[in-house]
Amino acid sequence: MLALTLNRVDSPEPVSRWPAPSTRRSRVSHPQPVTVGVIGLGAMGLGTALAMREAGLSVIGCDVSAAARETFVTAGGRCVDSPRELGEHCDVVVVVVVNADQVEAVLFGEAGLTAAPGRTGLVIQCATVAPSYAESLGARLDAAGLFLLDAPISGGAAKSRQGRLSVMASGSAEAFERAAPVLDAMAETVHRLGDAAGMGSRVKLVNQLLAGVHIAAAAEAMALGIRMGIDPEALYGVITRSAGNSWMFENRVPHILEGDYTPLSAVDIFVKDLNLVHQTGRELTFPTPLAASALQQFTAASGAGYGREDDAAVIKVYQRLAGLALPGAANDAEAPS
Amino acid sequence: MLALTLNRVDSPEPVSRWPAPSTRRSRVSHPQPVTVGVIGLGAMGLGTALAMREAGLSVIGCDVSAAARETFVTAGGRCVDSPRELGEHCDVVVVVVVNADQVEAVLFGEAGLTAAPGRTGLVIQCATVAPSYAESLGARLDAAGLFLLDAPISGGAAKSRQGRLSVMASGSAEAFERAAPVLDAMAETVHRLGDAAGMGSRVKLVNQLLAGVHIAAAAEAMALGIRMGIDPEALYGVITRSAGNSWMFENRVPHILEGDYTPLSAVDIFVKDLNLVHQTGRELTFPTPLAASALQQFTAASGAGYGREDDAAVIKVYQRLAGLALPGAANDAEAPS
Repeated sequence: MLALTLNRVDSPEPVSRWPAPSTRRSRVSHPQPVTVGVIGLGAMGLGTALAMREAGLSVIGCDVSAAARETFVTAGGRCVDSPRELGEHCDVVVVVVVNADQVEAVLFGEAGLTAAPGRTGLVIQCATVAPSYAESLGARLDAAGLFLLDAPISGGAAKSRQGRLSVMASGSAEAFERAAPVLDAMAETVHRLGDAAGMGSRVKLVNQLLAGVHIAAAAEAMALGIRMGIDPEALYGVITRSAGNSWMFENRVPHILEGDYTPLSAVDIFVKDLNLVHQTGRELTFPTPLAASALQQFTAASGAGYGREDDAAVIKVYQRLAGLALPGAANDAEAPS
Repeated sequence: MLALTLNRVDSPEPVSRWPAPSTRRSRVSHPQPVTVGVIGLGAMGLGTALAMREAGLSVIGCDVSAAARETFVTAGGRCVDSPRELGEHCDVVVVVVVNADQVEAVLFGEAGLTAAPGRTGLVIQCATVAPSYAESLGARLDAAGLFLLDAPISGGAAKSRQGRLSVMASGSAEAFERAAPVLDAMAETVHRLGDAAGMGSRVKLVNQLLAGVHIAAAAEAMALGIRMGIDPEALYGVITRSAGNSWMFENRVPHILEGDYTPLSAVDIFVKDLNLVHQTGRELTFPTPLAASALQQFTAASGAGYGREDDAAVIKVYQRLAGLALPGAANDAEAPS
């Protein structure tokens, strides 16, 4: 048996940390402060934009939603009307949208960035997308004269606001050099995963496969335990000290114990991400039966109306089928009375 | 997001630790040193028997295998020929066999303990069995005038030899009191889970569900990562610092990276334990699709000839289907050349 020691806190230990020497080189090559555009001012994008402003970058935001733009402006930010306009002002554009369709629209749509990239030389793409899409995106941006950093993020809204995200990034040396001051402002941990677009998205996909399976397994385990009459708090206490533990079990089961399904990350995120695993498996003709099983449970949860609840609500699939009484039902407006 | 801190080492932190006050009370009620019988001198039982001798208990072993008995005798131990004979000499009998069929044979077979329990007042049953079986076992031993401590163990052979196992135990106050000096000698952590036989086995079953799903998911994730061209060592480094981590991913993936499938715990153990999850779900008419999916992968691995290899060898199911090159193949005699 291997004796592995891991000091685990909510923030995993950084593998590499910006600023690194490349950051300083990069700053030399940008004697003017870098101007950064942020496309997508949702929970993650807004936090990131504000964190970058605090770090001293000049930031311009952009979002289809007027309400999202207004939130940023109220916080002292500046917005333009379209990604196309960002190209006039920004050296680097960070894309923090939900999925590949939105990436397409903001980069290649009618008022998209590539319609008039102007001053912009680098796109940092942060949405979780299929690796095959990230690869083709790199080629298409290259044809348009733009570098791509394939850079999926994780950490949640609170970490984004603190500029402490984790980034799984791949791209050319030039892309990393241009990205350095931006990554420095937005991330605590940058996993540098090679020089080709696609590799960042591949590693993120593997992480999402595991995260999704572990959340569904945590739900299944807690549901079976409750069905067998085990006290849920006691079960949590034993499992988190045993070999059955996972980062997700430890982090998400408290939501179940408290009956608090306020979405920190929603069920529908894993419907999306496990479908990306499925799509990638299909492209590679590679079977992923565990991920497929977890996908079915998240799909069932979404179909039953829990898509916008916290992803721990996947346990409600088991609850509805078996008529379980979940803990903390008094706190959960959706619980059967 | 909850900020949970866990100092995780190979040995999880104890919830409660023997000796506790009950141990001292128990010793007062046993002015003679307790004589303990150990049925089953495999890797776990032999280690436990030797650890108990070192702790000062009088220990008598028993195993159907002459080779297993001889190993214990060579180490200075004493054996008898049958569980029935143990009843003449032992206050407490610890059952450390593989499955419920073996528990049946050693307790209720022709030369089983209950044929002549004599001096024995308590059975500590350590095999992972179906909770329904543990319940009925408690009732049948009660009818025979014996207490049962339902006490599945985990930790592996090395921990058993050190007397540092983890025990998930339930039983009456009298059973715990009689068991105290024995648990003190064999365990580092005792999770005390109530006064009814069955609860220890229920909690252990939930742990095995998670452990089995996490090993199969770790195999699936690493296989997909390798298929996508990710460097396996780099992937391990990122995932163990990310939200996709699990105790099993961290502990088992190094076996894959090293190509070392020497069984610390075998594929067939999870074929057995996930079948117990399946059986329990069937008894309760409760669906466990994640566990079912993992069970199919372990069953496929066993059917392909890897049943006695380390449970990380479940990755070879993906390898064979997709023609993957696994890392460390030079170390693995079974790897395709």
